[in-house]
Amino acid sequence: MNIAVIGASCTPYGEWWDKSLRDLLAQAQLTALDDAGLMPKDIQEIFVANMCAGQLSTQVNLGAMAADILGIHVPSTRIEGACASGALAVRAGIAAIESGRAEVVMVSGVEKMTDVDHTRVTESLMSATDYETEGFVGATFPALFALVTRAYMHTYNLTREQLAWVSVKNHKHGALNPSAHFRKEISVQDVLKSSMVADPLTLLDCSPMSDGAASIILSTPDFAKKINKHDVKIIASTQACDTLALSHREKITQFYATQYAGQQAYKQAGITPRDVNLVEVHDAFSMAEIIALEDLGFFDRGTAGHEIAQGKTNLNNTLTVNASGGLKAKGHPIGASGIGQIVELVQQLRTQCGARQVHNAKIGLAHSMGGLGATVAVHILTNKE
Amino acid sequence: MNIAVIGASCTPYGEWWDKSLRDLLAQAQLTALDDAGLMPKDIQEIFVANMCAGQLSTQVNLGAMAADILGIHVPSTRIEGACASGALAVRAGIAAIESGRAEVVMVSGVEKMTDVDHTRVTESLMSATDYETEGFVGATFPALFALVTRAYMHTYNLTREQLAWVSVKNHKHGALNPSAHFRKEISVQDVLKSSMVADPLTLLDCSPMSDGAASIILSTPDFAKKINKHDVKIIASTQACDTLALSHREKITQFYATQYAGQQAYKQAGITPRDVNLVEVHDAFSMAEIIALEDLGFFDRGTAGHEIAQGKTNLNNTLTVNASGGLKAKGHPIGASGIGQIVELVQQLRTQCGARQVHNAKIGLAHSMGGLGATVAVHILTNKE
Repeated sequence: MNIAVIGASCTPYGEWWDKSLRDLLAQAQLTALDDAGLMPKDIQEIFVANMCAGQLSTQVNLGAMAADILGIHVPSTRIEGACASGALAVRAGIAAIESGRAEVVMVSGVEKMTDVDHTRVTESLMSATDYETEGFVGATFPALFALVTRAYMHTYNLTREQLAWVSVKNHKHGALNPSAHFRKEISVQDVLKSSMVADPLTLLDCSPMSDGAASIILSTPDFAKKINKHDVKIIASTQACDTLALSHREKITQFYATQYAGQQAYKQAGITPRDVNLVEVHDAFSMAEIIALEDLGFFDRGTAGHEIAQGKTNLNNTLTVNASGGLKAKGHPIGASGIGQIVELVQQLRTQCGARQVHNAKIGLAHSMGGLGATVAVHILTNKE
Repeated sequence: MNIAVIGASCTPYGEWWDKSLRDLLAQAQLTALDDAGLMPKDIQEIFVANMCAGQLSTQVNLGAMAADILGIHVPSTRIEGACASGALAVRAGIAAIESGRAEVVMVSGVEKMTDVDHTRVTESLMSATDYETEGFVGATFPALFALVTRAYMHTYNLTREQLAWVSVKNHKHGALNPSAHFRKEISVQDVLKSSMVADPLTLLDCSPMSDGAASIILSTPDFAKKINKHDVKIIASTQACDTLALSHREKITQFYATQYAGQQAYKQAGITPRDVNLVEVHDAFSMAEIIALEDLGFFDRGTAGHEIAQGKTNLNNTLTVNASGGLKAKGHPIGASGIGQIVELVQQLRTQCGARQVHNAKIGLAHSMGGLGATVAVHILTNKE
C-alpha cells in the first residue's frame, strides 16, 4: 500500500461552546486544505467520521455538510464505527483512491459533546455497547471497562499504581501539545485520589468528552509528487471486528480485533513491531492502552503495565506511545479521534512537533477501537522513500 | 464498471414490533447468503446502512453487529447519508471490490422506526435537514417538501390531481408486491381526502415509517462466474451532493445532485435514459418522484406529473417506475430503502417478480436521495452479457 498524506490538520480539542459542529468541521477542513496547498475544487471525494451528532446535535447527513462547507458537489459520505469512526473513514478514503474513483480525497472527523446534558452524552456513548444486552441494563462504557480491568489485574497481577502511570505519562505528553484538551501534568496520587467512576477506574483513568475536528487529505503517490507533498505515506490500513457484546467473548483481557488488525497491518507494511518508533493507541481508558500495546505485539502479555510504569513508553524512550497526549490528555472528540491520531503521526514524521517531537521518527502506527474491542482499525505511516 | 450482484434479499417492510434491529438485519443477511448459495466465511467485507438507530434504538456500531450476526471478524462499517444511506453503502461495497481489497462483499441496510414514540421519529428525521437553519426552527421534512411542491405547482401548472396519481400508481404496484408495507390500491380521491400533513401534501403523498432490512452480496465478475451467479451486474454507481439547506439553493423545483449523478451514471454505463426499462426512484413524497424523473432525463421539465397521470409510468407501460410500490407503498425503512431498490431491480432482471414483473427488463436504474436533494446516488443494473 502506498497512499500519500498531503494535508493534515486538527482543531485544538477542548470545550468549545462558541463553535458549532459546522464551525469545527470547517476549521479542520480549511486548515487541512491550506496545509496541502490545495483549493476545494481539487477534492474529488469526501468522507466524514462522526458518532454522536444525530443524538446530540440532531444532525446527520454530515457528508453533505462537509461538501457544503467547501462549496463543492462531490460524493461525500458519513462513516461510523463508534469510537473508531475516524480510522474507518480513513480506510474508506484509501479505498476510494485504490479503486481508481478519485485521485485526491478528504477525510474529516468531528464531534461536539460538551455543551449538552451529560446524561444524554452518556446514553449516546452507551449506544456503542450491545444495547439490548449491555446498555439496556445500565452498563456504561466505564462499567464495562472496569470489568475488563478487574479481570486483567487479577490475571496478570497488574497493580493500581502501574495502571495509573498510563494517565500520568499521557498527561506529561499532553502538556507539551498546544492542541491538547488538558495541558497539565498529573501524578499517580492524583489518579488514585480522583473521583471513583467504576471501581477500579477513577476519573483520571477515563478519557474526557471533547469537542474537536480533524482532517487529512490523501492522494495517489503521483499526485503527491506533482505538488511536492510526498513526504509521508500510509503503508498499511487494516480493520477487524469482534462480537458487539463483551459477554460473548472467550477472553476479556485481550482483544482479538486488535491482534488480527495489527498482524495484517505488519504484513501489509512488510515490517515487525520492532520497526515502529511511535504509536498512537486508543487509550479511552488507561486499561485500554495496556491491552492494545500487548495485542499489537509491542510487549509480552501481562507486562505492558510494568513497562509503562518504568517509563519505557515515555517520549523518546524505547517506544514513544501517545506523544500527542492520547485520548486521555489530547482529548476524545470521537469522530475526530482516529483521524487526529494520524494527524499526529504525520506531524511527527514531518518533524513539526516541537517539544513533543519523537527523534528519528521513521515509522508510526495508529490504533483505533470502536465499542469494547468490537471494531478496530490500524494504520501504519512512514516518511521513508 | 462491472460488479456482479450474486445475492439479494429484502425482509417484508412493515410494522414489526416483535422483531429487533438485530432480528431484521439477521433475516436480510441470512436470506441474501442463501440466495447466493454462500456461507458466512465467504464474505470478506461488510457495509451496513442505517440512519436512525442511534436516536431510536440507542445502537450504533452496526458494522460490528452485522459481522457478529454472521460470526465472522471481517472489516464491517456503517455508512450513513440520511435516506440515501443504503445506496451509499452499495457504493462503498463496490469501492472495496474495485480497490482489490475484497472479492465478495455484503451490503446490508436496516431501520426500525415504528415501535417508538412518533415525536422522536420525527425529530430523528429532522436531523437530515440542516438542523441549525431548518429543523431547529421547526421545519419538518413534509414541511420542506411542501415548499418545493408549491413552488413546482406554481412554476409548471401541476395540478393537485396529477400529483396524487404518483401515490395511486405506486399503491397499485405495491398491491402486487408480497413484501410491501401497504398492499391496497387507493384512488385520487383517497389521496385528496386523507389528512393534511403540510399543505398541499396529504398523508397519502408521504411515504410511511417502516421497519425492514435488505441485503445484497456483490462480487467480482470472475467470482460470480465461478459460482454461476453472473446474471445481474451493476454497470454504473455515482453520487453527488448539494447544499444541506434548501434555502441555499438557486432553484428548489429541481435537484442538481440528481441531475449530476444521473448524467455521470449514463456516461459510466454507456447508455441514455431511453435505454432504461425500469426505474426505482426515491418517492419519499409524491413530488419527489416527479422531480426525480425529470432530473434523470426521462421526461421534459414540467411534464412528468402529466405523464404519470396518463399512466405512462405504470407497470409495463412506456417506462415502469417503482414497480415495487416505491417508498410510498413498499415502505421506507430508511437504511434499507436504497438497497431494497436494488434488490427489486435484481429480482426484476432475473424475472422473479410474478404479478409485478416488468416484461423484457434489460436495464434498471435506482435513484436514492438523502436529505432534501442534499445527497443522491444512482445505480444502473443490467442482465445483458
